Amino acid sequence: MKKMTEYGSTPFLFWFSFLCLLHSLPVYSAKSSHRRFPSLLISPEEKISLSARQNQLYTTKYFTQVLDHFNYPKSYETFQHRYLINDTYWGGAKSNSPIFVYTGNEGNIEWFAENTGFLYETAPHFKALIIFIEHRFYGKSLPFGGKKDVAYSNATTLGYLSSTQALADYASLIIDLKKNLTATDSPVVVLGGSHGEMLAAWFRLKYPHVTIGALASSSPILNFNNITSPESFNNIITKDFMSESESCYKVIKGSWQQIKDTAKQHGGLELLQKSFKLCKNIISVDDLQNWLESAFIYTAMTDYPTPSNFMTPVPAYPVKQMCKAIDNPATGNDTFAKLYGAVTVYYNYSGTTTCFDPDDNSDPHDLGGWDWQACTEMIMQTNGNDKESIFPPSESQYKDQVSYCKEAYGVEPRPNWITTEFGGHDIKRVLRRYGSNIIFFNGLRDPWSGGGVLSNISKRIVAIVAKEGAHHVDLRFKTNEDPEWLKDVRKQEVKIIAKWISEYYHDLADKH
Amino acid sequence: MKKMTEYGSTPFLFWFSFLCLLHSLPVYSAKSSHRRFPSLLISPEEKISLSARQNQLYTTKYFTQVLDHFNYPKSYETFQHRYLINDTYWGGAKSNSPIFVYTGNEGNIEWFAENTGFLYETAPHFKALIIFIEHRFYGKSLPFGGKKDVAYSNATTLGYLSSTQALADYASLIIDLKKNLTATDSPVVVLGGSHGEMLAAWFRLKYPHVTIGALASSSPILNFNNITSPESFNNIITKDFMSESESCYKVIKGSWQQIKDTAKQHGGLELLQKSFKLCKNIISVDDLQNWLESAFIYTAMTDYPTPSNFMTPVPAYPVKQMCKAIDNPATGNDTFAKLYGAVTVYYNYSGTTTCFDPDDNSDPHDLGGWDWQACTEMIMQTNGNDKESIFPPSESQYKDQVSYCKEAYGVEPRPNWITTEFGGHDIKRVLRRYGSNIIFFNGLRDPWSGGGVLSNISKRIVAIVAKEGAHHVDLRFKTNEDPEWLKDVRKQEVKIIAKWISEYYHDLADKH
Repeated sequence: MKKMTEYGSTPFLFWFSFLCLLHSLPVYSAKSSHRRFPSLLISPEEKISLSARQNQLYTTKYFTQVLDHFNYPKSYETFQHRYLINDTYWGGAKSNSPIFVYTGNEGNIEWFAENTGFLYETAPHFKALIIFIEHRFYGKSLPFGGKKDVAYSNATTLGYLSSTQALADYASLIIDLKKNLTATDSPVVVLGGSHGEMLAAWFRLKYPHVTIGALASSSPILNFNNITSPESFNNIITKDFMSESESCYKVIKGSWQQIKDTAKQHGGLELLQKSFKLCKNIISVDDLQNWLESAFIYTAMTDYPTPSNFMTPVPAYPVKQMCKAIDNPATGNDTFAKLYGAVTVYYNYSGTTTCFDPDDNSDPHDLGGWDWQACTEMIMQTNGNDKESIFPPSESQYKDQVSYCKEAYGVEPRPNWITTEFGGHDIKRVLRRYGSNIIFFNGLRDPWSGGGVLSNISKRIVAIVAKEGAHHVDLRFKTNEDPEWLKDVRKQEVKIIAKWISEYYHDLADKH
Repeated sequence: MKKMTEYGSTPFLFWFSFLCLLHSLPVYSAKSSHRRFPSLLISPEEKISLSARQNQLYTTKYFTQVLDHFNYPKSYETFQHRYLINDTYWGGAKSNSPIFVYTGNEGNIEWFAENTGFLYETAPHFKALIIFIEHRFYGKSLPFGGKKDVAYSNATTLGYLSSTQALADYASLIIDLKKNLTATDSPVVVLGGSHGEMLAAWFRLKYPHVTIGALASSSPILNFNNITSPESFNNIITKDFMSESESCYKVIKGSWQQIKDTAKQHGGLELLQKSFKLCKNIISVDDLQNWLESAFIYTAMTDYPTPSNFMTPVPAYPVKQMCKAIDNPATGNDTFAKLYGAVTVYYNYSGTTTCFDPDDNSDPHDLGGWDWQACTEMIMQTNGNDKESIFPPSESQYKDQVSYCKEAYGVEPRPNWITTEFGGHDIKRVLRRYGSNIIFFNGLRDPWSGGGVLSNISKRIVAIVAKEGAHHVDLRFKTNEDPEWLKDVRKQEVKIIAKWISEYYHDLADKH
């Protein structure tokens, strides 16, 4: 089976995962960043070892999960499904204390646990049990004997990797766990990160009998089937950089042609290699361009108001820092030097990397399964670029995606499936008189916010929008430097969740 | 693969399908009753041929349906999915006129079309398009090349027969049909019969983006996982007969022991054979008992206020007629003669059958797939009998069911799956602040009403209960003899559906 990055010389940036441009991680990051606790840069005094920290954060458990919820007889095959649990704050089953569940997404679950401080910081207030459930086919939740090479070997085994199966996993695990804890009356609130936020919203919509409400932070559930324009994603990145400085935007925008022109010149590739401190000779200028684009994309996504280490270690307001590096270059005044200064804010903020490898395919967070998901159901067109885009103008390359998927897995994408199963079209009309207890949070600096729900649908399905916010910033561990708007967002979220829980107890009392 | 009826001498009445006690149909009925239009007995002047009647009722069409919505790469295999359409009354796409969809259940779809007059009789008022969608694996909607012997050959092929797949079928077909009709803004209202009513309710809960509301008539969505007592079903039948006459109830109740005792006597089996005019020697007294029980069960279900021919031709108020046959016997005063007189109200109302075959396995309505569904997910325990039951006291035989399913298909039932996927526990609390636009109709003489929603959940999820009503009596073709309460039920339903549609148009106008 061909891997995305082996796909000839065609640009392979057909689509973005939320977190998944694996090739773009630098050698340094690939080897070690995943071992760091995300707030390491924020609180150096907390330099305790990861394992000690993990012990504080969770205990690891496994549940015997059904392989195929919807078809027989595969429903009788099982696999070991990992989840993390922390009962430090739990008020217990007798008092029907709540259960907060993180609906895992495309990566190993420890990584998300370590980046979702909101759960740990709000659990004491609610006396809540904390559960992080891993998404099937990621981390250690591998069907087929826990063997990744078997689980990922072909389209038939990968066939069990889908959103609907994952949602049914969560329902099965939660119901069983509550039963085992004799906590069937404890209310469950779900939330998730990245793709997990979509899953959280969909979980409330599909399994209202399992969860009383969902916090769907930065959940681009409208990024399917042209509900949102394919240009929206890159337009937001464009605006992010423009908002810092027009000259910064112009330098980045102008660089793409200059890179192409240079590559064609005699000695051009060597010049590019030297300018960007690449470890190896450049084979494809597209790889270099993707590597650079990834830095801008992920920096826009993680444009947090405090230092962070979600994808890579970056300073507070990294977009601003990138533009500073361009507008006040430290190492040279030519475009490539400026661009290099900018992308190292993302790729080498710690300053320890000596050379970079745009071809690097290492996968520290175990995100590899997303490639399959993007080839089957998660068809989120985000790579259109209009004339104003910070990236080279281009139409969305759906045909190329189809060709890639056919060659890599022997399957074609099903672009209409997600909206058939979960909706999305006319969401305001559909949910106006239907459903309840969903918070859609979006930060408008997050390129994914274009596919988010940005205004209230009803009194019970509400939107919280922060114009300064980036990708699920609300769910991160709080810091002393958090701005007021961010504190306020979290306060609003807690208040709404408190209302759901209080209503639940009221309704429960009515029942008895 | 063993068939249920071949399952040794163990009583095979482990569970009831809504409609499906195939063996209990008499030779006469098996051969010809399915050819009759259901209201034939009601309006003899309408004796037009079935094909002419069918032509008025619908046109048959096929849709290329996905075999497996939830798993790859089987999602790329397809089958021809049948649906019936009638656009006589449709106001058309330009005026966004509504679409009424019958979500098919466990039988061939023509049969349901011919028994769901409500759709035809309300469509003109709403200028609605009428669609009946067949359930996969029934009628002509057979995967695997349309070949029943292949589709039903083993657990792997039958594995694609499940409620979740069926619901996704309906979503896919409806979305595609609306697109082809350029009627994407036409509101869709769903309803169904028997299991189809459950599917209609679940469809509104799982696919609110595809339907604006569901009329779930006689939908026992609480008949799973012990939410409803396994004795409830037979207790309602007991009450039905008791309400007609206590002596009638006592004769039936007393008969079971008498049959057993007789069977043990020398010449007893011959006596039974003669008493019940059986065509062949009795092999198993259990078969005879099941045959008799079936008559009482289905008569209770179809205890309509007017003559009908849904399962077999029966007179108006057939329970009353059965009790009349017992209390004022025409042919003899002993228990067997009385019982024979009673069951022939169900098995031989037309009087043309000369002998009966309790072993008869013919399947005129193509209900055979239910056996698989009852062995996998549709685990509805209905066969418990307490001391007062009209049937012999017995505990629910779940263990026997498991043994049967293992032997017949090599699978075990998944008794928790339906409540995991669709809920049911604490339904009033769960839906009190969630969801909208569902009508649960129940007639309290219907044994399935014990598993129904019998009181309003919210202003928008309402229960209509008719104490005189039987199984989905509201959906049948109206007759001049319909009682006031039945007219009133239909009026209420039409009024509520009208409100849904009017609100929809209001919301649609808001959007534009």
